Amino acid sequence: MDLDQLIREAADELMEELKKRTGVTLTCPSVQAGADRQQASHVSQKISCIIDHTLLKPEATCEQIIKLCEEAREYNFASVCVNPANVSLASSLLKDTPVRVCTVIGFPLGANTSVTKVVETRDAIANGASEVDMVINVGALKSGGYDLVLRDIKAVVDAAHDKALVKVILETALLTNEEKIKGCLLAKLAGADFVKTSTGFGPGGATVEDVRLMRKVVGPDMGVKASGGIRDYEATRRMVEAGANRIGASAGVKIVKEAKDSEFK
Amino acid sequence: MDLDQLIREAADELMEELKKRTGVTLTCPSVQAGADRQQASHVSQKISCIIDHTLLKPEATCEQIIKLCEEAREYNFASVCVNPANVSLASSLLKDTPVRVCTVIGFPLGANTSVTKVVETRDAIANGASEVDMVINVGALKSGGYDLVLRDIKAVVDAAHDKALVKVILETALLTNEEKIKGCLLAKLAGADFVKTSTGFGPGGATVEDVRLMRKVVGPDMGVKASGGIRDYEATRRMVEAGANRIGASAGVKIVKEAKDSEFK
Repeated sequence: MDLDQLIREAADELMEELKKRTGVTLTCPSVQAGADRQQASHVSQKISCIIDHTLLKPEATCEQIIKLCEEAREYNFASVCVNPANVSLASSLLKDTPVRVCTVIGFPLGANTSVTKVVETRDAIANGASEVDMVINVGALKSGGYDLVLRDIKAVVDAAHDKALVKVILETALLTNEEKIKGCLLAKLAGADFVKTSTGFGPGGATVEDVRLMRKVVGPDMGVKASGGIRDYEATRRMVEAGANRIGASAGVKIVKEAKDSEFK
Repeated sequence: MDLDQLIREAADELMEELKKRTGVTLTCPSVQAGADRQQASHVSQKISCIIDHTLLKPEATCEQIIKLCEEAREYNFASVCVNPANVSLASSLLKDTPVRVCTVIGFPLGANTSVTKVVETRDAIANGASEVDMVINVGALKSGGYDLVLRDIKAVVDAAHDKALVKVILETALLTNEEKIKGCLLAKLAGADFVKTSTGFGPGGATVEDVRLMRKVVGPDMGVKASGGIRDYEATRRMVEAGANRIGASAGVKIVKEAKDSEFK
């Protein structure tokens, strides 16, 4: 089966199943089947502005968070991406700078209740976060509980309520292509701003194929964040060419330096 | 430096630092230095009653949770340990059985705010959990923020409020011996019921040395749960001999079968 056909069939099945479970006919998000996007011929010029400078290790110390924020300011990254416990510190350090504070919700397993995800979202925003990367309920998606997955994402989107961008982490390495497609459509249906590939704690990270598939499914009006295992400029360039408009990486400084070198080749 | 001396010094330093940060002199928990416990000569007879039958993979399906609960009932395990999103299902399946429902809080990174951990604890109890395994704020411990670590554990203990046992996961593989000692003392000071070695998602699991150290520090009146990488009866037996009185494992059925075989040797 070719990819376009797989997307169409997964979309049909998802909408049918949601109708059965909720009694409501939802409008299927327009699927950009066949519309591969080739983006960003001048990746290196803007690369720092699309990087979420990331430190999510549980053992990260205050000193390491401070260094991360200093680097983010110096290199003008889109955001720092830190655990919720570090949002207050990062926000105070980045006040009056253009660098945003991004955090993670229900991370990295996504197997929390919506109640917890909602409170974590509100708390993070109160502490200064303006982007939240939430993990979907992977087990529910795999069990066909699409209505539960949709409600879970929507609860976080509603809690963020225009105060924070919402990115939906699919943890693609755990999913079949059909599940990735359904996850993207559910994120779009729920009104999220981005889909995102990986937590960096799962069995695999971003791949060019997954980013291309996700961009194809969500179309041009939604963001695609590639994350997990992106360690150099070459990998970043490939992700952007495949359709990513945000990159999560802990190697942001290295990536920007390599990008600058590549400009003068 | 021998272990007893390390424990005394770490305890002194911890109490000194807490006094400095909070202005309050806390009573140091009695440290059982030198008092190694040799337990459980007949491990195999009671082994099922100390096992938390565990399934925390994010991709676990409803079917797998149902199977886990059936096994727990059949083998009379202490509990099933599942992610918060699966507590309601497990509780409904195990109603009217002696098997308890255990879940995890701030899992597996522990880098959430106390606000989130408290809500997650209350929500889990409302859904039927009677044991909660919370992860400490590892980064705060490593940064010397002992007052924050203490408040974080105490917030969960207060939220559980006699309705659920609280186990405090140290994620030992990320800690120095000194940090493990301080983590144990903080858990004891906060009024938790158990200390626990590992999440199973970190860089390492339970070791005999860590379990022995933790038992030495918390003394006989607190529980010690060994978890992470315990895959057979032999490993279980060694953990119990080192002082563990609860075992977290996904291989519970195999362990019990091997224990029975060993009885008839």
